Amino acid sequence: MENGAAKKWRFEVKQKLNTAPTITIRLVVTTLKENLNKNDPRPTIPLGNGDPSAFSCFRVTPVAEDAIVDAIRSANYNCNAPTGGLLPARRAVVDYLNRDLPYKLSPDDVYLTSGCKHGIEVILTALARPGANVLLPRPGYPLYEARARHSYLEIRHFDLIPEKGWEVDLDALEAIADENTVAMVIINPGNPCGNVFTNQHLQKIAEMARKLGIMVIADEVYDHLTFGSTHYVRMGVFGSIVPVITLGSISKRWIVPGWRLGWLVTSDPNGILQKSGVVDCIKGFLNISSAPATFIQGAVPHIIEKTEEDFFSKITDILREAAGICQDKIKEIPCITCPKKPEGSMFVMVKLDLSQLEGINDDMEFALQLVKEESVIVLPGKAVGMENWLRITFAIEPSVLEEGLGRIKAFCERHAKKK
Amino acid sequence: MENGAAKKWRFEVKQKLNTAPTITIRLVVTTLKENLNKNDPRPTIPLGNGDPSAFSCFRVTPVAEDAIVDAIRSANYNCNAPTGGLLPARRAVVDYLNRDLPYKLSPDDVYLTSGCKHGIEVILTALARPGANVLLPRPGYPLYEARARHSYLEIRHFDLIPEKGWEVDLDALEAIADENTVAMVIINPGNPCGNVFTNQHLQKIAEMARKLGIMVIADEVYDHLTFGSTHYVRMGVFGSIVPVITLGSISKRWIVPGWRLGWLVTSDPNGILQKSGVVDCIKGFLNISSAPATFIQGAVPHIIEKTEEDFFSKITDILREAAGICQDKIKEIPCITCPKKPEGSMFVMVKLDLSQLEGINDDMEFALQLVKEESVIVLPGKAVGMENWLRITFAIEPSVLEEGLGRIKAFCERHAKKK
Repeated sequence: MENGAAKKWRFEVKQKLNTAPTITIRLVVTTLKENLNKNDPRPTIPLGNGDPSAFSCFRVTPVAEDAIVDAIRSANYNCNAPTGGLLPARRAVVDYLNRDLPYKLSPDDVYLTSGCKHGIEVILTALARPGANVLLPRPGYPLYEARARHSYLEIRHFDLIPEKGWEVDLDALEAIADENTVAMVIINPGNPCGNVFTNQHLQKIAEMARKLGIMVIADEVYDHLTFGSTHYVRMGVFGSIVPVITLGSISKRWIVPGWRLGWLVTSDPNGILQKSGVVDCIKGFLNISSAPATFIQGAVPHIIEKTEEDFFSKITDILREAAGICQDKIKEIPCITCPKKPEGSMFVMVKLDLSQLEGINDDMEFALQLVKEESVIVLPGKAVGMENWLRITFAIEPSVLEEGLGRIKAFCERHAKKK
Repeated sequence: MENGAAKKWRFEVKQKLNTAPTITIRLVVTTLKENLNKNDPRPTIPLGNGDPSAFSCFRVTPVAEDAIVDAIRSANYNCNAPTGGLLPARRAVVDYLNRDLPYKLSPDDVYLTSGCKHGIEVILTALARPGANVLLPRPGYPLYEARARHSYLEIRHFDLIPEKGWEVDLDALEAIADENTVAMVIINPGNPCGNVFTNQHLQKIAEMARKLGIMVIADEVYDHLTFGSTHYVRMGVFGSIVPVITLGSISKRWIVPGWRLGWLVTSDPNGILQKSGVVDCIKGFLNISSAPATFIQGAVPHIIEKTEEDFFSKITDILREAAGICQDKIKEIPCITCPKKPEGSMFVMVKLDLSQLEGINDDMEFALQLVKEESVIVLPGKAVGMENWLRITFAIEPSVLEEGLGRIKAFCERHAKKK
């Protein structure tokens, strides 16, 4: 009896309704890592996820470290923070965003979140209601699917078109929307595609969303991580055409994903989100949700205001170089093609031509075999909604990237079909 | 057209199903603060919530500050942490808990959370399923109600009995449980009552839960903050009778609620939570949920292992003194009675005798009038499920507490009914 074997427990899980087939990048990468060949003496090359913080060339600026140390030493930030965040931190975020906007947001438009992940949770929870659906990009970032499913929001996908530089297929978008559609998501700069939307395309998105009567959730977690010819424009620029929820974070630009400090911002000069009740839903949910650590909030003004331009330009210089290496090396691999040179974020989507490979039937098999033979981790496109593509992270030390792509080339040559 | 007034937006909120009447302590205290009399030259005395970190006598040990500084300076913790938390941090938590248990937990039983608030979210989300209900204590901590409601878990209340030192009414508990009951919650040391359950009573709770086939969620966020005659025992001690989910945090014992570092632990030597599928639900949800900041996780081993006993005993000495002041001063106020001297946590529940007061009809009116006239904030019992009681926080600098209770006495005398 003591071991409980005979006992019937009422909390037994028969069926879990809302955490059904959930793919996350983290789970896929974990599976791949479990297949690493421990006898391979070479270092593992992580081209699977977007966290370059382990590489010394991507180390955060001392300015940001100092800000955290000062905040903790002050002992002013051991307390709980108010819902939505400390005012000076919200003010710093709003000043940061206002640099790129034609109107002025106020600190009351800003809600601090535990990273962008939490921002996604907050907005999708705030939008959840019976029968509602959201439009998500394909390829995209799988956490949106997982979170929408968790909140019983129906998911509908619109395509990003590789031949058009990964622009949104606006006709398809219009076709899948209906009177229960509440929002569409864009990720700009793009994850997983590395694209940057033009000003004109963003305006078209805004006009289409307005026509459909839906808001735009603009995931700008990779904001200003751009290094191509397309000028970076925030979706919030079009906030007077359509209400925009801007999601952002210090995770990517400052290379500190582990600090868990992000923001959700209502970029909505006409106050439509307020009037429609969405803001109350956001506040209501934040009230029962855990906030980012108070002393990190306390450090935010210093981090945002004092980080030197040099730090940012050094990071984008490395990313530009790495994106170039990626582009060049991939050209040398016959079974992989890249439809568009990346101009932003940390990723590129490339297409696998499986007909050129022997005994590899899909992207997951490719990634699994690659990790076993070459100790290189890449993300199967399936994980981001596009089978038989790969997402490659180039945000690593360039020499390591070069080595990794070399190994992929050797792998593809070894598995090439005999002509 | 540009101002959007004429446009019909599809995301308009007609009815929000799951964030209905949600009381949180934070909201009530915010409302009270809005009623402060700005012309009162005296300092506001905060007896409303449990965050003493603003008082210098409750400042966190330098050991913990140093641990954070070292972690941030190492640059080893800027990355994302694995789901569930960094292994050394989980190991430190498990060693901490194992000191008080008759069996040994493993680091795999530990999941780090963004404070106890996140732990509550995780377990109630993991338990949510159509028709299920949870048993919550009355008085209790209102976040449980809010979170359960958010997950569409039905709530049933069992009483804590003031005349029996706030023990659980086990007969009532048995009467409200049915085949859809999945869990019961206890908070020990008690919030809001300041009680500490005896070993015998915890064993009775375990046996009743086992009889009912439900798990016990043991909120031990105030663990070891005890200063009375009852020896503190963890619910996990009875984990071989009934599976226990232990929730904890560094927030209270180290006086750093703003650091957002807590844990959810399966205290379940028979592995029933694993077999029943609950552990998979916990992991699945954590995978899409934001983790505590990685460098705070990195600091945890140092914080837990190196904090000197002196720091803890100084804190409990202050709390003991403050609880004594509370008890003595309340005896001097005829319309307020305290059924049980607090032995733990930071709070005491006291009963209002409204028949002795003129023109004050309930606890909320009492608290509102008090804040206006005396700049003292106390929590109306309604916020924790017991109307016409008050929750008083004594975890503040003792001289300030004395002043605050003096003002409450003056207030009650001024409003006493003429005999």
